[in-house]
Amino acid sequence: MEDPAKPYFYQGLTDRERAVFEGAIALATIYHQFVGTPVSRSRKVIRSLERAIERSILLQPFKEKVEVKIDPKRARSGKGPYAYFSLTGEMLEVKVVAKYGKARAYVAMRFIPDLGYPLMYVEKVEENE
Amino acid sequence: MEDPAKPYFYQGLTDRERAVFEGAIALATIYHQFVGTPVSRSRKVIRSLERAIERSILLQPFKEKVEVKIDPKRARSGKGPYAYFSLTGEMLEVKVVAKYGKARAYVAMRFIPDLGYPLMYVEKVEENE
Amino acid sequence: MEDPAKPYFYQGLTDRERAVFEGAIALATIYHQFVGTPVSRSRKVIRSLERAIERSILLQPFKEKVEVKIDPKRARSGKGPYAYFSLTGEMLEVKVVAKYGKARAYVAMRFIPDLGYPLMYVEKVEENE
Amino acid sequence: MEDPAKPYFYQGLTDRERAVFEGAIALATIYHQFVGTPVSRSRKVIRSLERAIERSILLQPFKEKVEVKIDPKRARSGKGPYAYFSLTGEMLEVKVVAKYGKARAYVAMRFIPDLGYPLMYVEKVEENE
Repeated sequence: MEDPAKPYFYQGLTDRERAVFEGAIALATIYHQFVGTPVSRSRKVIRSLERAIERSILLQPFKEKVEVKIDPKRARSGKGPYAYFSLTGEMLEVKVVAKYGKARAYVAMRFIPDLGYPLMYVEKVEENE
Repeated sequence: MEDPAKPYFYQGLTDRERAVFEGAIALATIYHQFVGTPVSRSRKVIRSLERAIERSILLQPFKEKVEVKIDPKRARSGKGPYAYFSLTGEMLEVKVVAKYGKARAYVAMRFIPDLGYPLMYVEKVEENE
Repeated sequence: MEDPAKPYFYQGLTDRERAVFEGAIALATIYHQFVGTPVSRSRKVIRSLERAIERSILLQPFKEKVEVKIDPKRARSGKGPYAYFSLTGEMLEVKVVAKYGKARAYVAMRFIPDLGYPLMYVEKVEENE
Repeated sequence: MEDPAKPYFYQGLTDRERAVFEGAIALATIYHQFVGTPVSRSRKVIRSLERAIERSILLQPFKEKVEVKIDPKRARSGKGPYAYFSLTGEMLEVKVVAKYGKARAYVAMRFIPDLGYPLMYVEKVEENE
């Protein structure tokens, strides 16, 4: 895939660095666009939101694969008409593969109990010969 | 549907006013939660996001019906890997019915060319005898 | 203040109902626009965000007063470079006065321990003779 | 600054790649958290939001400098009580420096007329000996 934006990027940037850049954008987009969305434990509601997020993020440049799981197990919800909750970062399990030139960045976001924090991180970077 | 939050509301509030309140919350939630989401002209992408938004908003208390249409006709998009755009208020056509006690509020949001503005408004309020 | 959007609203809508409508929009805007924003316990950071939200929401039509307090007491944060957290609805204490014609709606949002839920509600509606 | 999250990252990741990763997160956070926020041409309103965004993003790990300018020149606004608009990506001019170990990534976001698109890109990556 050609890249019309390439002239605007630092010319010393490697394909690996660009792939990491594109992967990071996907993770922060998911977090900051969708945290706060009303969700419930209903599989239908959750699946629908997971698929909509995946399809949306795949539109961003150089995203090869996007996998979103929402795990509401830690959610505290109200009663009766208030039996729902808001999507938080803690509920998100995301894997994204970004491909640029010869490089692929595998990035992820998930809640890390030891850190007490939903972490965005890089799982691997590959470069094809 | 019983309302566990009723004691916290103004006791002089009418059912009509409460229905209007709940309808307005739905409209502003849709606008401020989802504006900025990556979208394209693909029917599959658009339908998926419309359904996810509808299902999410129906979880909020006292929402009886939620109808979301995304009309990207005014969107300006880039080329190649950048051939997508961000959801704006101008693209949103929303109808919500909120029901509280004996009252129903029909509220809506759509771009009004004469105002140059995506307007949130009340179409009708009904009260059953 | 004249209302260029009045022709689009239900003609049977009372001033009280319209004021409630405008108040509800403010509350849901604050929640769904700003939940997820990085914040810390620093007073400087918190004051800055509180003021920015208040000024932003006052731009919306028919808002007379907007008061936002962010109380991070319930926040769980990480360590070292991760010693910050995301704004949640639980941290928000909001009061808004919306005025339309002869009516004023006093609406609010705060975490209600008994409900286990940050509630948006109407505190009072007034109408001047 | 020590990094408690380092064990979760790919061990082959370079400091340059990590700095780029952290820079990209800042850009996408700003876009997807704040697009949709009500703004006007008032300098007071704009400055307040610019500062609040800068302070918020500086809390994220490994951000050394964050500069946000909101340029509403392209905004279309309504009349009377509707004389405001929503923040869009087109209005944002952002520069971020992320520092990790020996590396600094200079990343930016601005509207590029030739692309018709607000672009997130890398301006430079430096590594100190």
